[in-house]
Amino acid sequence: MKNRILIQDLPSHIGTQVSIAGWIHSTRKQGSVAFMLVRDRTGVAQVIASGHDIVTHDVRNEAVVTVTGEVIEDRRAKTGVEIKLSEMTVISRPEKKLPILVNEKASFQKLELETVLNNRVLSLRNPKRHLIFTLQGEVIDGFRTCFREHGFTEITTPKIIASGTEGGTQLFSVDYFDKIAYLAQSPQFYKQMLVGAGYERVFEIGHVYRAEIHNTSRHLNEYVSLDFEMGFIEDEHDIMDTEENFIRYLVDRINTSAGHILEEYGTTLEAPDRIPRLSVKEACAVLESDYGRKMKTLDLDPMGEKLICEWSKKHHGSDFVFLTDYPRSKRPVYTMPKKEDPEFTRSFDLLFRGLEITTGGQRIHEYGMLVDAFKARSLDLRDFDYYIDIFAYGMPPHGGLAIGLERITCQILGLNNVREASIFPRDRSRMRP
Amino acid sequence: MKNRILIQDLPSHIGTQVSIAGWIHSTRKQGSVAFMLVRDRTGVAQVIASGHDIVTHDVRNEAVVTVTGEVIEDRRAKTGVEIKLSEMTVISRPEKKLPILVNEKASFQKLELETVLNNRVLSLRNPKRHLIFTLQGEVIDGFRTCFREHGFTEITTPKIIASGTEGGTQLFSVDYFDKIAYLAQSPQFYKQMLVGAGYERVFEIGHVYRAEIHNTSRHLNEYVSLDFEMGFIEDEHDIMDTEENFIRYLVDRINTSAGHILEEYGTTLEAPDRIPRLSVKEACAVLESDYGRKMKTLDLDPMGEKLICEWSKKHHGSDFVFLTDYPRSKRPVYTMPKKEDPEFTRSFDLLFRGLEITTGGQRIHEYGMLVDAFKARSLDLRDFDYYIDIFAYGMPPHGGLAIGLERITCQILGLNNVREASIFPRDRSRMRP
Repeated sequence: MKNRILIQDLPSHIGTQVSIAGWIHSTRKQGSVAFMLVRDRTGVAQVIASGHDIVTHDVRNEAVVTVTGEVIEDRRAKTGVEIKLSEMTVISRPEKKLPILVNEKASFQKLELETVLNNRVLSLRNPKRHLIFTLQGEVIDGFRTCFREHGFTEITTPKIIASGTEGGTQLFSVDYFDKIAYLAQSPQFYKQMLVGAGYERVFEIGHVYRAEIHNTSRHLNEYVSLDFEMGFIEDEHDIMDTEENFIRYLVDRINTSAGHILEEYGTTLEAPDRIPRLSVKEACAVLESDYGRKMKTLDLDPMGEKLICEWSKKHHGSDFVFLTDYPRSKRPVYTMPKKEDPEFTRSFDLLFRGLEITTGGQRIHEYGMLVDAFKARSLDLRDFDYYIDIFAYGMPPHGGLAIGLERITCQILGLNNVREASIFPRDRSRMRP
Repeated sequence: MKNRILIQDLPSHIGTQVSIAGWIHSTRKQGSVAFMLVRDRTGVAQVIASGHDIVTHDVRNEAVVTVTGEVIEDRRAKTGVEIKLSEMTVISRPEKKLPILVNEKASFQKLELETVLNNRVLSLRNPKRHLIFTLQGEVIDGFRTCFREHGFTEITTPKIIASGTEGGTQLFSVDYFDKIAYLAQSPQFYKQMLVGAGYERVFEIGHVYRAEIHNTSRHLNEYVSLDFEMGFIEDEHDIMDTEENFIRYLVDRINTSAGHILEEYGTTLEAPDRIPRLSVKEACAVLESDYGRKMKTLDLDPMGEKLICEWSKKHHGSDFVFLTDYPRSKRPVYTMPKKEDPEFTRSFDLLFRGLEITTGGQRIHEYGMLVDAFKARSLDLRDFDYYIDIFAYGMPPHGGLAIGLERITCQILGLNNVREASIFPRDRSRMRP
């Protein structure tokens, strides 16, 4: 729109006539004066209409309007300015009663998650909830910027695949012309293949699919995975170092560009110089000795993950903790076993404030070892030939990881359910909006 | 790998001992001297082994090696330097005969597309083909950087959807627990909804799916769509202006950061100050008068697209041309009709060197008009309620477009088939690799 200025820029226009455009956030009358709040993507401005009788039928909450008037200083206003109305045009008038209120803080807190998600567009107009995806945009761009700066190439790999990555369970099937295809659970095979194609360092930001039947606060059936994979590593510690470096970069960036969002959510964000690295064995021992909690196998349950994060915070001042050396039986077929103890692997998880946000590790790069690993799990080599074959043509040592975008967003802001951090979440019972 | 340096950095290490790592590109013996080319993600280096007898069984093409030696100046070498070998380790030895040659220019040209795609990983090790996706990474990052700089928020929207965006044809179906879902043909509805959720300006880089049965050189069944949508526009010309601005930015960026890739492909890239805008009616008239070619309807066939680009190049010096004012019958239900002539729409395509790379336009934002448009096409409003309803709660005038990532990559480099510009393409007969 010609001559429109953004609400964030009003303070530099004091004393001049300007036009803004946005949604009516609220209206209030006091005698012959009407006070309106108008909201655009950059903020909320107070508009004062004195002597007018403009708060008509059309000027109601969530109407889209343009407002022209003089910018005047007002120390009481949050932005330090307000607009003295001279003209107002209603561009789009709400045709139905609003199913939820956009502008009330109290109602925002009380809304059920189902109500929020059923009314997703209106719920995201609420200034506080709106910020979730502003922050998520920063996380996405932070990931990309950090990895591009370190010589990684951005890739896009297919989500329609012929066979499962992790062994064939939890796959959604697709009618693909006269065949059955599946939705990718991860770009795992493809990112490894592209390391081998000579790109060496690749990253991808894309959807992945899990036909997980459980409905928990931490699972989605479609989510965004921040993946990277890199060649010519020594071992899995190079991958952890790379993630640590990314986490430090991201924390700095969010504090700089999105500090106001952390503040709005009443939280802070910091990364330690070094994230503690603890083998799963050690973690289980800590849980038993410090919390009297015995794990059934060498793996942590959700409560174990919460407690080990508490321990990390208490003893290392870190909201993050790496768990390493998972048993081979708990990890995918392509995971590199430890030479000194092949029942364990060069793999890790990263936990953040009680939740696993990353799984990663070194991968097998030797052709013979990989073939044996597939056979040991009784997988049909023919289903995976397009992947296994490339290891016969020269493959460097390599590894990588995946970060769940919705999970890291959720944990940064302290949200209760990962669905809050997905714009339009998909779960077992939700395909709309 | 500790102490590894990249091949591009060799010139700054003349006279010192260094280690590099990569793939053996080729080997050659001349008397007692062996010459090897070693390739990493940044280039190819010549390694000289005199007096050694290192070109053994293991040191063959595509083996992964580390090489330690002194960097010496050599004006005859492309990089100006070479390495005098002191130590070499084979990390990964090819176990099978290479199905295609990586290092021969002649064979690169002669390979059939099917052979290239069946051997995707090896084919991408070829230095020239490798560059396709280095360039594509620049296009992706260019899109994102340009739009973030203009106040757009990056979004990720679901690809599992309950009903089609464009009216229900050409959809892949997914078994979604006990229901049938579909793969999204575009993020169209969701990006509009997020404009309405107050983000105003959004962009997405993501996969889209078309169950298109035709196998042509310009169609893929899964491709990456660069989408944006913006609110508070005057009309579709704001959208074209925004794309024009992006194209100029991208052309500058590619010339700066990827000029060597254009050179390798024997091409150049430039954008005019203003891309010609021609209504479809005018374009059809040009085709008839200048090329003796009469279109059957108000739309261009692939040959018509080629010819109108020739015309644009000849008369306006532009590789790009906008076609505008498409008839309503040719455009999706949500397209804004022209007030002065409702049989035509505020929509456009962008053609680039003979191929359509963008479809865009202004969208209907009035609730009543949208309901009528859906009814006029006999669509069941209940299937689209999650989309249509939001127009009842205040929606600004808006529009947007989508750019096909593989198509723009293909056209920049002058590739013959859009599949060459997809890392792992999916078509009717291809689900692997």
